[in-house]
Amino acid sequence: MNIKENIKTLVIKKPLKLDCGKTINNFPLAYETYGSLNKNKDNAILVFHALTGDQFVTGINPVTKKDGWWSYAVGPNKSIDTNKYFVICANVIGGCMGSFGPSHKNPDTNKIYGTDFPVITINDMVNAQVNLLDHFEIKKLFSVVGGSMGGMQVLQFISNYPDKASTVVPIACTSSHSAQNIAFNELGRQAIASDHNWSDGKYLSNNTLPDKGLSVARMAAHITYLSKKGLQEKFGRKLQERDALKFGFDADFQIESYLRYQGSVFVDRFDANSYLYITRAMDYFDLVKQFDGNLSNAFKKTKAKFFVISFTSDWLYPTQENKDIVIALNAIGADVGFVEIKSDKGHDSFLLDVPDFLKTLKNFLDKSYIKR
Amino acid sequence: MNIKENIKTLVIKKPLKLDCGKTINNFPLAYETYGSLNKNKDNAILVFHALTGDQFVTGINPVTKKDGWWSYAVGPNKSIDTNKYFVICANVIGGCMGSFGPSHKNPDTNKIYGTDFPVITINDMVNAQVNLLDHFEIKKLFSVVGGSMGGMQVLQFISNYPDKASTVVPIACTSSHSAQNIAFNELGRQAIASDHNWSDGKYLSNNTLPDKGLSVARMAAHITYLSKKGLQEKFGRKLQERDALKFGFDADFQIESYLRYQGSVFVDRFDANSYLYITRAMDYFDLVKQFDGNLSNAFKKTKAKFFVISFTSDWLYPTQENKDIVIALNAIGADVGFVEIKSDKGHDSFLLDVPDFLKTLKNFLDKSYIKR
Repeated sequence: MNIKENIKTLVIKKPLKLDCGKTINNFPLAYETYGSLNKNKDNAILVFHALTGDQFVTGINPVTKKDGWWSYAVGPNKSIDTNKYFVICANVIGGCMGSFGPSHKNPDTNKIYGTDFPVITINDMVNAQVNLLDHFEIKKLFSVVGGSMGGMQVLQFISNYPDKASTVVPIACTSSHSAQNIAFNELGRQAIASDHNWSDGKYLSNNTLPDKGLSVARMAAHITYLSKKGLQEKFGRKLQERDALKFGFDADFQIESYLRYQGSVFVDRFDANSYLYITRAMDYFDLVKQFDGNLSNAFKKTKAKFFVISFTSDWLYPTQENKDIVIALNAIGADVGFVEIKSDKGHDSFLLDVPDFLKTLKNFLDKSYIKR
Repeated sequence: MNIKENIKTLVIKKPLKLDCGKTINNFPLAYETYGSLNKNKDNAILVFHALTGDQFVTGINPVTKKDGWWSYAVGPNKSIDTNKYFVICANVIGGCMGSFGPSHKNPDTNKIYGTDFPVITINDMVNAQVNLLDHFEIKKLFSVVGGSMGGMQVLQFISNYPDKASTVVPIACTSSHSAQNIAFNELGRQAIASDHNWSDGKYLSNNTLPDKGLSVARMAAHITYLSKKGLQEKFGRKLQERDALKFGFDADFQIESYLRYQGSVFVDRFDANSYLYITRAMDYFDLVKQFDGNLSNAFKKTKAKFFVISFTSDWLYPTQENKDIVIALNAIGADVGFVEIKSDKGHDSFLLDVPDFLKTLKNFLDKSYIKR
């Protein structure tokens, strides 16, 4: 796909020292905006995307021609109301929707980076994105909001830039990737690396694509995004366009067909090496360790108002891991609200039409905006 | 590996009509026994193995040179006391430890079956194994015992042969594979099928092995065998033989190294096509549907004494699914005991050193044996 014509890019000239030790500069950060920045420049919300998201939050994604990943939540009169707020979202560095990533050419060698791209972290991602504030001459964001890996970026952002947001909304996330989280990500990485076409990451130079491995990685991740109960209610043991079992290895069950479909459409829009880099960044995320075991210290410099949201059936980043953030905030007397939303839709609840969630998010933002 | 010299095989001459419609006969069933059959021939226990198990229940497996898969539970003075009981275990058909399976040659074509092997079911597995009773001239087993897929075979066995066992012990299992169960199995199958070396199942004829795909399948399954809490306690974010993150894609974390190891040792002992066939059999298992939605009817012809065991942290076959079996048995006034064992070791608890489980199993069997 030719993505360039649909992509707005900010070239970050300022050198950025990455956690791995390397310094990058003059690198592209692809972004999109929705709504209008007001005169006071105090109505901006920086939205952070999750593992496979991108800058196209809402409306039709011009590259995939499908709905933006947060179309339920972001738009006119929606939870994040673009009649009111100026929404900015950037593709993370390491990604594949225009921001500096492993499918870019290394200017020193003129070869595609592949796995020669530096390993990046959640910290590197937010340090790249903070440049957007200078670009738009925004001194302080009204809010930083994100779910899943987006939530990790929210936490890292306010920790790094305690004065740069008035409100902070981490959703369905964690302050430290668990062993099970790492295990599922490693499974995905191994699936990609096992694909004969991956060629140690040099597939773009070879004109091949590790689609099968990337598809398996997506299937694995997708199972973790849904709850056992949700899967049972939606699919159960329903058969796929057949009256009886076929005694073969085609997709007899709807759940099999669904997973295969999810894998197959994913490879059309995502880069395998980006999948490796972004999952690595998630696994490296440990805000607790960054503050020597005391998460409260990550937040002690900010006066921002926090609102933490979790979902009952999210087993990837369960309520307890979200509560741990609340506990750390309470321990320093921070202004923090918390809600656990009842939903059978698992981790994906934050992306789906879950009215209680959408209303709760809207209420928090709109009431905080009036009081600002 | 040359497995033949260590394998006892019974050739089943009697035709067996499979659920897929095909009939097989003169096929090998590999089995092992432990302890001695008494004069009355009423001390025999048929143990059914799980997905990747085999007939080598305890002691050193002569093929892998490692401990048998249920060495904690089976042996002299152990839960299943081989000083007292005569333990029989067969490799399931479809398997790869000597029983009729996809790595065997098709006598009609003299070619290795591969995916031309008929799709088999849990029902087919137990209908093959019941021939062992005739072989040993056992009219009635003292018990049928098994965990996970072994538990499914236990349930199917007593449903098919209500008079052939006095006691019935399904452990950590289900009466019907859930959508999430099917999803994880399908993930494993797709990982195998994605391996370039799989070659539509013809790898043995091609002298290649889909080791990478099979390894990924094993990694996926392994995550489901352990609990989130157990993984966190055992591995957490501990690093693998290093003091700091390496900013690369080697195994930085112990959990990554552990999963890679589990994958790599698995491919030395297991056949990829067998993995496809056995997971398919599990996914097809639906004892509820076999009895038109009323599980109680599966058990109404038997007078056997049931004992159902589940584990608190088993999220693959959670307690509720085990309780559903108990509820169906209670509904017809069957003799049934149930216990949920507290353990952080997840689904694998039944294979591990979980003293409460091992004692409970021993007590049930030994007390029932006295009263028989």
